[in-house]
Amino acid sequence: MARTARDTQIPSIGALDRAAGNLSRQLAQALREAVRRGDIPPGDALPSTRLLAASLQIARGTVIEAYEQLIAEGFLESKGGASTRVAQALAETHATGQPRAARRRVSQPGLPEPAAAFAQIAREFKPMPPVPFAISVPAGLTAPGDAWRRLGNRLRARGPGAPAGYADPLGALPLREAIAGYVRKSRSVRCEPRQVIVTSGTQQGLFLACQVLLGPRDEAWVENPAYRGVTAILESTGHRDTTARVPVDEEGIDVDAGIRMAPHARAAFVTPSHQYPLGMPMSMARRNALLAWARKSNAWIVEDDYDSELRYQGYPFPSLQGLAPERVVYLGTFSKILFPSLRLGYVIAPDDLVDAFCGARVLMDRHPPNADQHVLAAFMSEGHLERHIRKVRNIYADHRAHLMATLDALLPRDLAWLEPGDQGMHVVLWLAPGVDDRKVVEQAANAGVAVRAVSPLYAAGTARPGLILGFGGFSKAQMTEATRRLAAVIADAATLPKRKRAT
Amino acid sequence: MARTARDTQIPSIGALDRAAGNLSRQLAQALREAVRRGDIPPGDALPSTRLLAASLQIARGTVIEAYEQLIAEGFLESKGGASTRVAQALAETHATGQPRAARRRVSQPGLPEPAAAFAQIAREFKPMPPVPFAISVPAGLTAPGDAWRRLGNRLRARGPGAPAGYADPLGALPLREAIAGYVRKSRSVRCEPRQVIVTSGTQQGLFLACQVLLGPRDEAWVENPAYRGVTAILESTGHRDTTARVPVDEEGIDVDAGIRMAPHARAAFVTPSHQYPLGMPMSMARRNALLAWARKSNAWIVEDDYDSELRYQGYPFPSLQGLAPERVVYLGTFSKILFPSLRLGYVIAPDDLVDAFCGARVLMDRHPPNADQHVLAAFMSEGHLERHIRKVRNIYADHRAHLMATLDALLPRDLAWLEPGDQGMHVVLWLAPGVDDRKVVEQAANAGVAVRAVSPLYAAGTARPGLILGFGGFSKAQMTEATRRLAAVIADAATLPKRKRAT
Repeated sequence: MARTARDTQIPSIGALDRAAGNLSRQLAQALREAVRRGDIPPGDALPSTRLLAASLQIARGTVIEAYEQLIAEGFLESKGGASTRVAQALAETHATGQPRAARRRVSQPGLPEPAAAFAQIAREFKPMPPVPFAISVPAGLTAPGDAWRRLGNRLRARGPGAPAGYADPLGALPLREAIAGYVRKSRSVRCEPRQVIVTSGTQQGLFLACQVLLGPRDEAWVENPAYRGVTAILESTGHRDTTARVPVDEEGIDVDAGIRMAPHARAAFVTPSHQYPLGMPMSMARRNALLAWARKSNAWIVEDDYDSELRYQGYPFPSLQGLAPERVVYLGTFSKILFPSLRLGYVIAPDDLVDAFCGARVLMDRHPPNADQHVLAAFMSEGHLERHIRKVRNIYADHRAHLMATLDALLPRDLAWLEPGDQGMHVVLWLAPGVDDRKVVEQAANAGVAVRAVSPLYAAGTARPGLILGFGGFSKAQMTEATRRLAAVIADAATLPKRKRAT
Repeated sequence: MARTARDTQIPSIGALDRAAGNLSRQLAQALREAVRRGDIPPGDALPSTRLLAASLQIARGTVIEAYEQLIAEGFLESKGGASTRVAQALAETHATGQPRAARRRVSQPGLPEPAAAFAQIAREFKPMPPVPFAISVPAGLTAPGDAWRRLGNRLRARGPGAPAGYADPLGALPLREAIAGYVRKSRSVRCEPRQVIVTSGTQQGLFLACQVLLGPRDEAWVENPAYRGVTAILESTGHRDTTARVPVDEEGIDVDAGIRMAPHARAAFVTPSHQYPLGMPMSMARRNALLAWARKSNAWIVEDDYDSELRYQGYPFPSLQGLAPERVVYLGTFSKILFPSLRLGYVIAPDDLVDAFCGARVLMDRHPPNADQHVLAAFMSEGHLERHIRKVRNIYADHRAHLMATLDALLPRDLAWLEPGDQGMHVVLWLAPGVDDRKVVEQAANAGVAVRAVSPLYAAGTARPGLILGFGGFSKAQMTEATRRLAAVIADAATLPKRKRAT
């Protein structure tokens, strides 16, 4: 039996807001809603434009315009001289007869396969509140000053930072030149501006390196412990089972162990200047052994030089890249020495890998935003960055000494002790065996203190409990107070297991 | 036989620059170079600090400092009271006896497996010079005006755009709120600010969607033709063989064909408002069929709504997302309506996928830069964006009409003709069969005209030759002149095959 259209009725379309203007658009939206709610089922005729216009007290042309729009969209149909009807094609989505709203609320069966793992990553990387001991919070004296602002205002107005079209995926040339000059001078990196790829920071550099260097089944070395940002990328790109977690000792990564574990790895991710998170530099012997292995097995080394500017005794070790520019992908960032919300860092790639990094970057997000690249380039070329680094280094050295002394004074040695080291913007506080560092992190957060756990940075079965404490831009008074609270949390966490055992 | 150290000699360390300061650092660098060059072999003793200081006419403390640094680095060794020597461990890298420089120049055997494909992508996506008909070049009246600059200067100074620490990977809340309000109103997108993920533009939105929605062996639908940025991502993530290229006709994607090709696909990448590159909107019947398939097979739809603001007749189609917010990942960008170098766009994700998108974003580059997010939020909430869109839409409508009339007048119909359409910031110019559009692109570039080829947007074996012409911020005079040159290039390319056949 053919479906019989109901009588033409004026649908309930709510009030039109005459003050808001564009009545035809409002009417079309209201009609769409009425159709969606099922007020006007598919096949039904709409009132004539004359009738609806009169009923709504609006111009007939307004109704005609709305109908035409809905016909163009396929919501309505109008054949020959017949009346305008709700499109029969819409019947498909209403087939069950259920009201849409009710169906929509049903929870979705099954999420996509990768979703759960990424959701877990989101939880792990939840940003910390800007309280001690969050890492890399620029505040007061450690934030860039007026020069940064003035340059920004100047270069964004009508300078090279003004609104522009799509740009070079490798980054703005003045910044690439400034970076090449900077790393050559301060880090003994051997490179030309053409090898510099501006990134959104080290995380993007690591992501790009994984993409460019590792095929689907290729093995990689990663230090144990290591920055969680590396291991999480490798897991998400299907390299969980092809990652060798190579132990580190007081000389840095144990190259012999790496060779035993995965001699044919294609890439080694290392932090030679300042092992993350432990802090020791890689010894020259290990550097040479690592390079010898890489050359022999045609592997690449990814050198994450995330905070080498912040060394407080002597000056920074020269880069590994300077010893073997053809084998090392060098990563640097301005997050630590300037500020993280800038999201600018860099990759220095061997000449024959630059195009590949460029292509991987294009697919990820086309290119870095333009304006701040030019601001940073001017900040560097006018000498502000060097001055800023000198200033910040002194402040951090002072803050670091204060933090270490305070921790030493307030924490009993059998519960918590410091990993030695002389650089960076964090310290590692080891906790007594049996103390759950994740629990301490939670309890500290409740007490208004932001710390990170060390144990998730280790491969399964090798973890030691500890905390990472940043001494960014916080005042000494803030740090002292936070240390007091942290000491209480740790004391509490350490007695808890004993109490449990007693009961 | 034990290696015998040579006599201690003063190594050649070049001139120290007294004006540049930090002589100990200069000296250390010079000694490193001398060791690297092999001037002082491993095991050899260095001159005493007293002797070297005298020879260089510098303070002895300066030499001591440099030696200590090099000892800390492992370049030098000093045992007990004996003289300081070049570390024996360095011998390993000099084992072959070849001078380092010579070895370094040897070309590298074998690049990483993924490198070649990424390098090819870099060539494909080479940015165009800012000449007609590059797409989305903000110039003159189409660039945001003083309001953008003023807001920038204000919010970056001491406002929420000032230098800060690590921030929310999902983006700054004021911007997420502004975006939610904007897409609800202008695109009938149904969402809350918590579902908005600020991205670096549509490209990053597509990359994130591929990562979150597709497991390693999952199939996907992609329109044929389609934006090369989508297919390239799928190829680079190992989905080349699991991508179904679904044909489009005048109603948009052919859903029945998609179901025949890959009924169990997990995601469909579509451009419903304005098929890219052809321009037609997806009909209501197709929208319903696509949603019915997605609901039935528990698949996700990725709606790329890249330039829906730019429709010149009637007003834009409402979004597909508004019909099925639980099944659609909606992508928008400010590249087209503001300017590409801003690198800001957004994903609107179903509630249960937001955490996964957040985690994927964290691994890629942590979070978007802070400052411009706040500038854009204010630009939107103060009503500047709406005004800007109204202004730009009028200019583009005018420029588009001019470009189409000029193309019509200057190009013979049997060689080149326009695809009809009424929105966006580009037109598609079809070329006669047999004309090589890639060749035309090359020749046009030589003539100072920037166009893109259509054929690479098709699956292999289905391509048609054509050109994509943007009418961004160029003046009418610029466009007329560029059209003249392009007409000559096309006429040339069309006669070339005939000439070749004749010889």
